[in-house]
Amino acid sequence: MQNIAVLTSGGDAQGMNACIRAVVRMGIAENLRVYGVMDGFNGMVDGDIKELEYADVSNIIQRGGTILGTARSERFHKKEFRKIAFENLKKIGVEALVVIGGDGSFKGAKVFSEEFNMPFIGIPGTIDNDIIGTDYTLGFDTALNNIINAIDKIRDTASAHHRIFLVEVMGNTSGLLAINAALTTGAEDVFIPEALEDFARFESKIKKAVAAKKSSIIIVSEGDEIGGAKELYNYLKEKNLHEKIRVTILGHIQRGGAPSFLDRKMGTDFGVVAVQKILQEKYNLILGIQNNQMITYTLGDKITKNVSNQAEVLKIMHKLNVF
Amino acid sequence: MQNIAVLTSGGDAQGMNACIRAVVRMGIAENLRVYGVMDGFNGMVDGDIKELEYADVSNIIQRGGTILGTARSERFHKKEFRKIAFENLKKIGVEALVVIGGDGSFKGAKVFSEEFNMPFIGIPGTIDNDIIGTDYTLGFDTALNNIINAIDKIRDTASAHHRIFLVEVMGNTSGLLAINAALTTGAEDVFIPEALEDFARFESKIKKAVAAKKSSIIIVSEGDEIGGAKELYNYLKEKNLHEKIRVTILGHIQRGGAPSFLDRKMGTDFGVVAVQKILQEKYNLILGIQNNQMITYTLGDKITKNVSNQAEVLKIMHKLNVF
Amino acid sequence: MQNIAVLTSGGDAQGMNACIRAVVRMGIAENLRVYGVMDGFNGMVDGDIKELEYADVSNIIQRGGTILGTARSERFHKKEFRKIAFENLKKIGVEALVVIGGDGSFKGAKVFSEEFNMPFIGIPGTIDNDIIGTDYTLGFDTALNNIINAIDKIRDTASAHHRIFLVEVMGNTSGLLAINAALTTGAEDVFIPEALEDFARFESKIKKAVAAKKSSIIIVSEGDEIGGAKELYNYLKEKNLHEKIRVTILGHIQRGGAPSFLDRKMGTDFGVVAVQKILQEKYNLILGIQNNQMITYTLGDKITKNVSNQAEVLKIMHKLNVF
Amino acid sequence: MQNIAVLTSGGDAQGMNACIRAVVRMGIAENLRVYGVMDGFNGMVDGDIKELEYADVSNIIQRGGTILGTARSERFHKKEFRKIAFENLKKIGVEALVVIGGDGSFKGAKVFSEEFNMPFIGIPGTIDNDIIGTDYTLGFDTALNNIINAIDKIRDTASAHHRIFLVEVMGNTSGLLAINAALTTGAEDVFIPEALEDFARFESKIKKAVAAKKSSIIIVSEGDEIGGAKELYNYLKEKNLHEKIRVTILGHIQRGGAPSFLDRKMGTDFGVVAVQKILQEKYNLILGIQNNQMITYTLGDKITKNVSNQAEVLKIMHKLNVF
Repeated sequence: MQNIAVLTSGGDAQGMNACIRAVVRMGIAENLRVYGVMDGFNGMVDGDIKELEYADVSNIIQRGGTILGTARSERFHKKEFRKIAFENLKKIGVEALVVIGGDGSFKGAKVFSEEFNMPFIGIPGTIDNDIIGTDYTLGFDTALNNIINAIDKIRDTASAHHRIFLVEVMGNTSGLLAINAALTTGAEDVFIPEALEDFARFESKIKKAVAAKKSSIIIVSEGDEIGGAKELYNYLKEKNLHEKIRVTILGHIQRGGAPSFLDRKMGTDFGVVAVQKILQEKYNLILGIQNNQMITYTLGDKITKNVSNQAEVLKIMHKLNVF
Repeated sequence: MQNIAVLTSGGDAQGMNACIRAVVRMGIAENLRVYGVMDGFNGMVDGDIKELEYADVSNIIQRGGTILGTARSERFHKKEFRKIAFENLKKIGVEALVVIGGDGSFKGAKVFSEEFNMPFIGIPGTIDNDIIGTDYTLGFDTALNNIINAIDKIRDTASAHHRIFLVEVMGNTSGLLAINAALTTGAEDVFIPEALEDFARFESKIKKAVAAKKSSIIIVSEGDEIGGAKELYNYLKEKNLHEKIRVTILGHIQRGGAPSFLDRKMGTDFGVVAVQKILQEKYNLILGIQNNQMITYTLGDKITKNVSNQAEVLKIMHKLNVF
Repeated sequence: MQNIAVLTSGGDAQGMNACIRAVVRMGIAENLRVYGVMDGFNGMVDGDIKELEYADVSNIIQRGGTILGTARSERFHKKEFRKIAFENLKKIGVEALVVIGGDGSFKGAKVFSEEFNMPFIGIPGTIDNDIIGTDYTLGFDTALNNIINAIDKIRDTASAHHRIFLVEVMGNTSGLLAINAALTTGAEDVFIPEALEDFARFESKIKKAVAAKKSSIIIVSEGDEIGGAKELYNYLKEKNLHEKIRVTILGHIQRGGAPSFLDRKMGTDFGVVAVQKILQEKYNLILGIQNNQMITYTLGDKITKNVSNQAEVLKIMHKLNVF
Repeated sequence: MQNIAVLTSGGDAQGMNACIRAVVRMGIAENLRVYGVMDGFNGMVDGDIKELEYADVSNIIQRGGTILGTARSERFHKKEFRKIAFENLKKIGVEALVVIGGDGSFKGAKVFSEEFNMPFIGIPGTIDNDIIGTDYTLGFDTALNNIINAIDKIRDTASAHHRIFLVEVMGNTSGLLAINAALTTGAEDVFIPEALEDFARFESKIKKAVAAKKSSIIIVSEGDEIGGAKELYNYLKEKNLHEKIRVTILGHIQRGGAPSFLDRKMGTDFGVVAVQKILQEKYNLILGIQNNQMITYTLGDKITKNVSNQAEVLKIMHKLNVF
């Protein structure tokens, strides 16, 4: 093994830069040449690939985003483009790939590896933490810290005006960001995709809060059945409960900013182990965390994700926040 | 003079707590009793007024929001409720008011003062910095720091994905927040209410940016003629230029959080001077800053606001950001 | 069980307020009366104990420090004062204690429980993460985020001036804060109590860095054998290598500020489980985390702490930072 | 005029990057070629000079430090090296210099300009705000925001432990950082070089605070006559008042981090005007701010600095903080 390449794919997530840095420096320490592929699989198709030296990854561990760029690649779904991608890698002698991204990216890498015998190691990176097979995905902790800092600020205005804020957070079809944000900001309620809404309870809560001139923060997951914070607002409007209610959609500030300690740490750990696996010729694995231990799995494996039972957590939340 | 009262009115703005603290402590140092009115003029109507001791304003200078609560009061527009308000003040012997808020609040205080001979000092507090008569209003600096920190985060994702973000900021009918945010985040363009849009130029900019796979940040003032970021997005969608474009509405995170140095400083200065004016029996004045000096004015005065010529600033911005 | 009390003891650590809040609200939800003891065991001796209602713990989950105050109590080491403490608890009918603190606090609670039959649950809180028996202690994650944010700032100046900074971090006799900070800030070297220093290697590193006009960050644990950053500076001064070197001792900014997501989450989890254990009459246990699972142990137990092998981590660090 | 060069000199200060960016981009917009000199005047001596293109200053407005590096140059004090510096500039056709730094840097530039007829524009950059001739210097606002955020964190621990913290801040011989930090953090006292200490008053304050188990923050300017926070600690130790007292020296975290809104704005304004002055052939001027207006002055001018009367501010501070 002499040459490897690394790329980031899918949505950007904090810790990706720490991970790229670790792959590059550990690779160089182990006498590998490490190439960076720009903009996900697109860079492989376009031949947008460059060698990364030691200094190219200096001063990036504390930066948001990904220095390699990222994208979802439509072309990589087609064999003709994957062939071009392979030719581009072959030209510079790349023998293995490190793919930092989500499930979709791993599937792409798996197909590619089977077609062209190009081994890969997958590293889970998405703020949603919705990858089965690992308890943790890069970016989750930074996103949560961004979310709770934003909600702490909204709380100031909510308290000053005795208002009720519906705050929509990301998470795709997973309520993990929402429920964890709710628990740690003292939010008065939370709507997540995993739980059926009890609207009667909610309506009576809101009525009580309005009557008592109390401020409240209600977290709504973007993937919630009800259709996000705006739909919930419309629902309350129909009930004539909207006057004191404001909607904030946190949006992309959830992704960016300086990575948290944990994401820098996990990104580094994942990157180091990815290179070690390649050197041990253990291929086509995805790295994960289970019970705080680094594990590997393959896409076909039956895997349980150790996340808290959302229903249990909801029950506790409602005990802690009587409203 | 033995008893004064202080209240916050209108939208919450950082520095209000520093200002309340200064009014209370300077008042006590000058042997006054200082009362706090809750929730703007509503607290006067409802008799929700309490004495504030030295320790009641400990540890608030660094907190967001306002410990007194704030509101816009419909009732205070009616003479019958203003009469009740006056009775409530009279009961506890309040002889002068310090009103922290915006133009609307000052008008209310002026009417009240004329009707019931209740003198007041006005202190400008609004993140929009849209009060004629003062170059600075409490909350403007914190709001801008909140905005640029949020945009720094969005920049991470924009760069990683080569996307164009339309970021909507507050400002009411003033573009001051927008244009200052644009200048200090390296935004590629800005839309403000004070300038006619040159859509041809803008469209060609966006086309170039998309073609060059460049990320861009476009700041849009909520008061912009075009109708905010969403309308601009719809416009670009009609032109089929929307694929790489995302919209983020910053919302209430712009208001909250720990006040910046400048807002704590200005809040303290305003509060100290307000008490001094009352002791000097200089009444019914509004405090302001002109050319970095504390001044006073009254609501009738013809006053010029020393803000940068927006058209000039726009020209410079377009020189600095060729796109 | 009708009445319980909660206190914080030893050094303050972020997440303590989240934990107090969870004990109080979960207690109330389970029909307990919850008392707060001020300033650690001192408050028990002085009878400085007050009931905490639902609203008393509103708006504290996002605040630094501990609303109960904390201290190390000399008096509680003496039986005569423990007796007074017990009388004070008895007077108000307290039947169990929740003690948030470190090993010393748990030992005190154990002695007290044996003498006066006053059961307790211990919750680990210290930024140093140096409690055997749990992989995690409250405050560790916030401290690390504080540290890396501070070092990111120092990096700016180091780079601008091509200087070498010796940055001293807390950690008592544990190098966990230091080594984790080093890994996640891209620090060029680290000195921890757990590893013998290789001074020859270090000196040659510094010489190379000075010659190459490179900036460097060297993290030094306060518990390091060499005696902290100042001693290391003196050592380099003897070798005439000090001209480009600056020392910064991070000090108490490591402890404070808004708690991180993880510390709010862990504090809440610990608090909820503490109340559950008391209701189940499972007493005199300390709560801990092992492999990401909540566990309990008693002070006598032989327990392994799952922390990374420092020597291994050091080896990896030196591979990632060739200097 | 075709070619100009820009450099940063002296201590690094936030806003320098915004200023470099504005000089480069405004220069390019006006058809100039702009060169960057590395590491202050040293880069001129060493010929370490490179052209800066439009994209070279992308994404730096939000970064701490200075991309050009900075230094104090001993060699530039000697004519022989200034001659070499001039030859290096001549070689690439540089016709004017923009020097961002402090008084010492301006003096060097003036001597150089008189000797070799190399015109310059000076831009004030130092966190200490101690340049006579301008009310504001780049970096002051960011430093203050860094300081108050750090003190907010220390306040958490001070409150939790009822401790008194002596916090030393930078400022050189100026107490402006110290007194402004004290006013805006609610510090209980402040020691600045501009005021004689009243130790009797201070001692009695500390005694009262210790007796009342109150936490306190005392800000000490590094330039204070008493010799900084450590000396003050030693003084209190002699009086046997040190038990509850801790010392923190904030150090270099005061300089770094993301620049504040104000420093990005001022840096941009200064850079734009510097290029305009050069194009108007108005040379050998230093830019400054007086009463919120951009002005120019020369090193020989008699100039008054509009800063608050420190004695007056101290009096107010002691009224606001009775201790």
